[in-house]
Amino acid sequence: MKDKAVILLSGGLDSAVTLFYAVKKGYDCYCLSFDYGQRHCAELEQARRIANAAEAEFRLVKLDMSWGGSALIDEAIGLPVGRSPEEIKRGGVPVTYVPARNTVFLSIAASFAEAIAADRIFIGAHFEDSSGYPDCRKEYLEAFNRVVETGTKRGIEGDLRLEFPLIDKSKSEIIRLGHSLGVPFQFTRSCYAGSEKPCMECDSCVLRAKGFSEAGIADPLLDSILF
Amino acid sequence: MKDKAVILLSGGLDSAVTLFYAVKKGYDCYCLSFDYGQRHCAELEQARRIANAAEAEFRLVKLDMSWGGSALIDEAIGLPVGRSPEEIKRGGVPVTYVPARNTVFLSIAASFAEAIAADRIFIGAHFEDSSGYPDCRKEYLEAFNRVVETGTKRGIEGDLRLEFPLIDKSKSEIIRLGHSLGVPFQFTRSCYAGSEKPCMECDSCVLRAKGFSEAGIADPLLDSILF
Repeated sequence: MKDKAVILLSGGLDSAVTLFYAVKKGYDCYCLSFDYGQRHCAELEQARRIANAAEAEFRLVKLDMSWGGSALIDEAIGLPVGRSPEEIKRGGVPVTYVPARNTVFLSIAASFAEAIAADRIFIGAHFEDSSGYPDCRKEYLEAFNRVVETGTKRGIEGDLRLEFPLIDKSKSEIIRLGHSLGVPFQFTRSCYAGSEKPCMECDSCVLRAKGFSEAGIADPLLDSILF
Repeated sequence: MKDKAVILLSGGLDSAVTLFYAVKKGYDCYCLSFDYGQRHCAELEQARRIANAAEAEFRLVKLDMSWGGSALIDEAIGLPVGRSPEEIKRGGVPVTYVPARNTVFLSIAASFAEAIAADRIFIGAHFEDSSGYPDCRKEYLEAFNRVVETGTKRGIEGDLRLEFPLIDKSKSEIIRLGHSLGVPFQFTRSCYAGSEKPCMECDSCVLRAKGFSEAGIADPLLDSILF
């Protein structure tokens, strides 16, 4: 019997690559997606499609995070638009940061992983070409791994830990890896505004376009490479 | 204006003492309680009463943890009964352990704390006279504090951290502290079976009775001191 892994799956590109990576590594994969009141839930339907394409289990968890504090939850807070990759990098923690989001997702993944006797939790976080969220940094993920190792039954028994295989990769390296693994990029959604066609103005679309361009691969969501 | 603190409040004794401790320290307290499908929700109504007694804010968060894996969620798993404090201590992680529960609660507290601009998160965990849960150990709480310091916006700015003032205390020391702070022990509920009168058989009742006895204080839920 295969070892089990829980995969945080958002419907975006990075987590899709992470799922296909875990499948390739031989894990029996259980995907978790979260409905936390985000602006658009189109990404959740896409997450289900991506899980199906990987022949993985899929579970949607509904969360009350109605205290807001982010442009991704509260429509009264505007999305930053038209920033270059360099401006995004220099800009610090942006208003699209959702308070402690990865910590909430990882903690629920840890609980679920214990209940199904999984051995790994995979998260597709990376920092190099990201939006500057603190909960995508390596030192944070190492700290969370320590939480799993000290604060869960499977963790203290040495049977559960976190894997973050994309952490040191650039967006273009992630796209190349996904390409080699057969990730169905056409199912992934990155746009913060929730449109199927990338808006090309929000930080997430800008970073996605830069990644595809540098990888020399066409984004199937676009008719042509724009950068 | 007072600094704000988020308090994990279960309706049990330890978290009630922690709340009154934080109030005494001068914090404007926001209590979080969780409906996670536990056997008995009487404790949640008690948590609200305790928050009211402390003149603190109260918020109930509903959580889907239906994957179970604990006697406190799944009634098909029996509660251990009739164990002595020594047997509880030697027994390892018991079936009442809820997978990653404190991690889930603390992560949601971190998110909420950021949204309301709180400076502290208080948790009443302690290990000496506890049921042996890994997520009540000091090294775990220190690891979670590192998660807050590295993975949240307020944490990296130095404005948010965890406090666990009971961690090195015995149950009797906690009860004495609560007594001195005026904690309304009659509102607290400890029994895993959910009865108002302690069943005196489950681990939680056994440890509560030992604590009151050693503290030389009468438990208002009982007619007389039993140990």
